[in-house]
Amino acid sequence: MHTDELTTQQKIKYVQDTLYVIAGKWKLPIMIAISFGHSRFREIQRAVPDITPKILSKELKELKTNKLVMRKVYDTYPITVEYTVSSYCKSLKPVVDEMINWGQNHRVKVAE
Amino acid sequence: MHTDELTTQQKIKYVQDTLYVIAGKWKLPIMIAISFGHSRFREIQRAVPDITPKILSKELKELKTNKLVMRKVYDTYPITVEYTVSSYCKSLKPVVDEMINWGQNHRVKVAE
Repeated sequence: MHTDELTTQQKIKYVQDTLYVIAGKWKLPIMIAISFGHSRFREIQRAVPDITPKILSKELKELKTNKLVMRKVYDTYPITVEYTVSSYCKSLKPVVDEMINWGQNHRVKVAE
Repeated sequence: MHTDELTTQQKIKYVQDTLYVIAGKWKLPIMIAISFGHSRFREIQRAVPDITPKILSKELKELKTNKLVMRKVYDTYPITVEYTVSSYCKSLKPVVDEMINWGQNHRVKVAE
């Protein structure tokens, strides 16, 4: 991709598309937690600071609707539910990596 | 930066820090418009689709408070106000570039 060839308007439009998908405080943290193997509801809840079960449940539904997260139900007793990320979600990795970098530098900068 | 050496918790924390700074629908589009030379209020307004003067004014104040955007007043008649981005804002470029890439691919994918 050659972002330098795009017009300002196009860049704004593409960034808005991305913002729309990752909007809010919780979607990326949840996807990060799941991608690192926290596949059960309670595990995800523990991995994401300050999230309530109600919010997590709502966000997982939205992520599932947008095909970023998949929900598998296993026919055990009691029933086992596992969450995994889709390949579509994995394509966000470069975005997330740059956000981790920036957040890390930001903390160093703020601490100075 | 070696993001692979971080724990899940750290990654989530850094991403949340970044999300906090770029939160919302407008901040990144406004910063992109300014960084591409749209320095006057009306120019920024024209460059960012669907933004109202009221929202733009509020967002510019927040960006100024967070030292991402600088506001210069020139002693002309009538007064000239120009907005520029800070070097701190410019450090977000890798994040924004990856978001542009992702948004562009996303559009291709959705159109398929």
